[in-house]
Amino acid sequence: MRNTLMATAALLLAGGFAAQANDKVLEMTQDPDQWVLQTGDYANQRYSKLDQINKDNVGDLQVAWTFSTGVLRGHEGSPLVVGDTMYVHTPFPNVVYALDLANDGAIKWRYEPKQDTDVIPVMCCDTVNRGLAYANDMVFLHQADTTVVALDAKTGEVKWSAVNGDPTKGETNTATVLPVKDKIIVGISGGEFGVQGHVTAYDMNTGEKLWRAYSVGPDDQLMFDENTTSLGKPVGADSSINTWEGDQWKIGGGTTWGWYSYDPETNLFYYGSGNPSTWNPTQRPGDNKWSMTIFARDADTGVAKWVYQMTPHDEWDYDGVNEMILSDQEIDGEMRKVLVHFDRNGFGYTLDRVTGELLVAKKYDPAVNWATEVVMDKDSDQYGRPQVVAEYSTEQNGEDENSTGICPAALGSKDQQPAAFSPKTGLHYVPTNHVCMDYEPFRVSYTAGQPYVGATLAMYPAPDSHGGMGNFIAWDATKGEIKWSLPERFSVWSGALATAGDVVFYGTLEGYLKAVDAETGDELYKFKTPSGIIGNVMTYSLEGKQYVAILSGVGGWAGIGLAAGLTNPNDGLGAVGGYASLNNYTALGGQLTVFALPN
Amino acid sequence: MRNTLMATAALLLAGGFAAQANDKVLEMTQDPDQWVLQTGDYANQRYSKLDQINKDNVGDLQVAWTFSTGVLRGHEGSPLVVGDTMYVHTPFPNVVYALDLANDGAIKWRYEPKQDTDVIPVMCCDTVNRGLAYANDMVFLHQADTTVVALDAKTGEVKWSAVNGDPTKGETNTATVLPVKDKIIVGISGGEFGVQGHVTAYDMNTGEKLWRAYSVGPDDQLMFDENTTSLGKPVGADSSINTWEGDQWKIGGGTTWGWYSYDPETNLFYYGSGNPSTWNPTQRPGDNKWSMTIFARDADTGVAKWVYQMTPHDEWDYDGVNEMILSDQEIDGEMRKVLVHFDRNGFGYTLDRVTGELLVAKKYDPAVNWATEVVMDKDSDQYGRPQVVAEYSTEQNGEDENSTGICPAALGSKDQQPAAFSPKTGLHYVPTNHVCMDYEPFRVSYTAGQPYVGATLAMYPAPDSHGGMGNFIAWDATKGEIKWSLPERFSVWSGALATAGDVVFYGTLEGYLKAVDAETGDELYKFKTPSGIIGNVMTYSLEGKQYVAILSGVGGWAGIGLAAGLTNPNDGLGAVGGYASLNNYTALGGQLTVFALPN
Ligand SMILES: O=C(O)c1cc(C(=O)O)c2c(n1)C(=O)C(=O)c1cc(C(=O)O)[nH]c1-2
Ligand SMILES: O=C(O)c1cc(C(=O)O)c2c(n1)C(=O)C(=O)c1cc(C(=O)O)[nH]c1-2
Repeated sequence: MRNTLMATAALLLAGGFAAQANDKVLEMTQDPDQWVLQTGDYANQRYSKLDQINKDNVGDLQVAWTFSTGVLRGHEGSPLVVGDTMYVHTPFPNVVYALDLANDGAIKWRYEPKQDTDVIPVMCCDTVNRGLAYANDMVFLHQADTTVVALDAKTGEVKWSAVNGDPTKGETNTATVLPVKDKIIVGISGGEFGVQGHVTAYDMNTGEKLWRAYSVGPDDQLMFDENTTSLGKPVGADSSINTWEGDQWKIGGGTTWGWYSYDPETNLFYYGSGNPSTWNPTQRPGDNKWSMTIFARDADTGVAKWVYQMTPHDEWDYDGVNEMILSDQEIDGEMRKVLVHFDRNGFGYTLDRVTGELLVAKKYDPAVNWATEVVMDKDSDQYGRPQVVAEYSTEQNGEDENSTGICPAALGSKDQQPAAFSPKTGLHYVPTNHVCMDYEPFRVSYTAGQPYVGATLAMYPAPDSHGGMGNFIAWDATKGEIKWSLPERFSVWSGALATAGDVVFYGTLEGYLKAVDAETGDELYKFKTPSGIIGNVMTYSLEGKQYVAILSGVGGWAGIGLAAGLTNPNDGLGAVGGYASLNNYTALGGQLTVFALPN
Repeated sequence: MRNTLMATAALLLAGGFAAQANDKVLEMTQDPDQWVLQTGDYANQRYSKLDQINKDNVGDLQVAWTFSTGVLRGHEGSPLVVGDTMYVHTPFPNVVYALDLANDGAIKWRYEPKQDTDVIPVMCCDTVNRGLAYANDMVFLHQADTTVVALDAKTGEVKWSAVNGDPTKGETNTATVLPVKDKIIVGISGGEFGVQGHVTAYDMNTGEKLWRAYSVGPDDQLMFDENTTSLGKPVGADSSINTWEGDQWKIGGGTTWGWYSYDPETNLFYYGSGNPSTWNPTQRPGDNKWSMTIFARDADTGVAKWVYQMTPHDEWDYDGVNEMILSDQEIDGEMRKVLVHFDRNGFGYTLDRVTGELLVAKKYDPAVNWATEVVMDKDSDQYGRPQVVAEYSTEQNGEDENSTGICPAALGSKDQQPAAFSPKTGLHYVPTNHVCMDYEPFRVSYTAGQPYVGATLAMYPAPDSHGGMGNFIAWDATKGEIKWSLPERFSVWSGALATAGDVVFYGTLEGYLKAVDAETGDELYKFKTPSGIIGNVMTYSLEGKQYVAILSGVGGWAGIGLAAGLTNPNDGLGAVGGYASLNNYTALGGQLTVFALPN
């Protein structure tokens, strides 16, 4: 699988877009010593060119130093490294630390936002935050209460702040921000509270709000124009509201809390929208566009170039927010600029990221049973649509009926935990869930700021399989094939890192950091960190020495039982029962562990 | 300094006391693979015969595995190891974990007490707990709310529990328990709330209360008899109440929250009592006996054999609770059964532990200035009394006068952080504070459950010294001499461990675990753990491999600013200002880090 012709650097530096305030970000993402975006680079490849730690010596890895964040509950995201400073963030209350790498991680400054604790109960899936972004000598934090803050990277002083949403209506934030040129692009959470999802651009230097594009609603709110296409065809007027009954779209979800990528060549940024609200499909007839959709929007204007809805009229909570990984790969003998996306619904999609053409859509977990396939015949009226299996249709089974044995569970074959791509192997490395569910929808009425869910769930390991709740897989996105799959006791809720050392790293919910051979998947190293890992592995280099760093701190949706102290199996939207035995392996934490080879 | 003839084993196994239910504890403390008491052994030596990790290879130490306790704030004490099970405790809410050492620390069981959070504000110096004790297949926990719990070591089930005090009156607990034969002996905290201190014995198997001996009060409450001596002379009747005005003794303090030791040969157990209440000396004329006192009591009957008051009529909060380390050493050509005690007041005392004879009393920090000396002339009416310097007498300077430049500060030249003794070198290794203070007493009235302090304090590094707030020293207790002293930026609030590998370990408030040469003090290894260390280093061995373990989690009195989020310099009884810059090095945590040599 070495059919990849272009590496990250080439991909990102190609194209002749106008020089802007922070071409600097692009440049810095090319420097493997630093880690300035959560996603490693704009392409979301989470690939590092560093190879001092490689498959031959990774077994000798040692813990170099550690840092406690002073906060418990789920620690998602990763630290950033800029020069000899590391920036570490925490879950609510979203403390930010600047650590001095030249001085054993001493604290240069800390930013401690004062946030109303009332935001905690309106966060659906733990008080997580997916981290900071660095651009123009500023560190950007998007707090739980939706305050976007620009901090002076040297001093931690607030340069500006802007309020993006209203927690009293269930609007919160967990996502990182995307700095593009002179803008900061941010999303919103609250699909379980009927929030109408949107992305918003702020002026990077002043915090001025520039534009906001909704996922559902009338065309002006969508920021669609006559050129906006889906699967190659213009979507036409009122493409969203035509697929909703009455005003339901106003509380229709489609939130935007995932990872964003950006292609400087096309000047498009990519992200997905979440579930339509409520989780009871009977209450919202229609396709509920553009929930569960991949969006490609112009990074300057916000206008959508193309969209693709993966799960029309969702009946399972398969939010479409998972990351879009950009790479150039050969498909059917032709080099394609692709976007690869592992959807919650269990299908791994490969699209042409310029046109939005659907190239591949295959199950990346054999357990997936709610749909038989995604129709690839361009002439079919079902083109691009999953073929739902009646038995697993919670709508067809109806309200107050328990649909059982649906795979994947609501948290998908993969959730927020981001995959990595190695241009060296041409493979994607995907942390997955191997979990199924029972789902019983019920009628619910909307009250602002109150849960608007309307379903009772139970989760359990995929039956008739290895008994575990996860797999870590290598995926060939050109064919839609699993190359290898490593069974895991629990869902792999941690983001992967691939490196030029032919090693792939990931973390486990029990707390292991693991390193495996990028070609074969053979386990090369493991270490038990203080708490379960739901953070993403990153790497950097300082004075010629490569380091690998990971945040521990069990939580997130999978770990909500531990994080929030819940024990009723149906609590935590069904995750508490499924992951109850996690209790036997780890306890809450909030730590950074930094690894290196011995001197 | 190799004049020590008897090692721990010999000391403890000598003597012919009647065989009892748990000679087992004695036996287990002889097995260096295990660690069944917080203090390592009954003698409180904190010395391990393990030598796989030694001064030649300790520089290669690596982190083997880690565990997050799921609790923040100050983590004092250490884990226990019994066979292949490790028992880990936390600060309030005092969770107990049994970890499977044969399975990377997976959790066998956890005990999560439900305690009223009202106990938190009546804990003077953070929500610390100094750990568990193991005896008779039970694990003993003394909770913050003074509930003593016996847990089945295999299952974590509660076998019995007993309530030792009343938090609504300011009675709390932070100490470990001492299992002796068929009893559990426990203390009480609350000297800052006017609690009348006591030790209490419970039946190990049933939890029945057997006896209680107070530190201050009438003779029957003291459990003194006609044979009870002080400095060789019977104390006589009413030895305590004669030294108090009116009923002040009833709210007179002398709490018992330190480390306890036990000598099976004499069947005596040893501990110290804390400050007299209030901190305003003018409100309590007299010597305030037996606050600030070393007690030697019969472990069966509780009756005191001898007592020695180190700081009569305390004017500085120099609690006398620090550990009593038992060893046999040659003094003036004669082998003596000694007790060595590093008092808060800055004097290092060596006494004959059988008779209570005072052998040595010397300053173990040259900064100490509140007293010139302890009078050693047996014929002097001042025999055994420190000679107070008028300038630093907060009583003589009077109420509402600020006495400045007093050394040590209220937290003493050493506080709860326990020292270690190596029978190999004959030296004590002492974590110390190098801190001075201003102290302004004021009149205060007593209300049950309310702070009863009556002084405003400010703390700062000892002036005209190295600028740091601590030293780690090696001490010759036969002569009262510092052999070497290592300057530290902050007080060393962690307990030391000495080993047969000629290495001494300790932790620092910034979070470093350090290993130094037992002879020379040369630094051999250091590692930055996740959070500041106020726990005690321990070691154990499993399947032939030696491990060293330490709890991180900044807090305690020194770290109260971080732990409780206080910023007013006079808060935390004056510690907040003194240790403010700790904020630049570490954040709250609660982690276990386990070290070993590479395979
Ligand atoms: O619909 C939403 O707005 C929304 C928000 C979030 C979030 O912000 O974390 C999650 C989800 N949905 C969700 O469906 C989900 O599975 C999920 C998992 C996690 C997590 O961090 O573990 N967050 C979220
Ligand atoms: O008088 C008391 O009852 C009492 C209790 C405690 C405690 O229980 O921790 C401390 C003290 N005093 C005290 O004086 C003191 O310096 C102290 C330090 C610490 C600590 O754990 O860091 N506890 C205590």
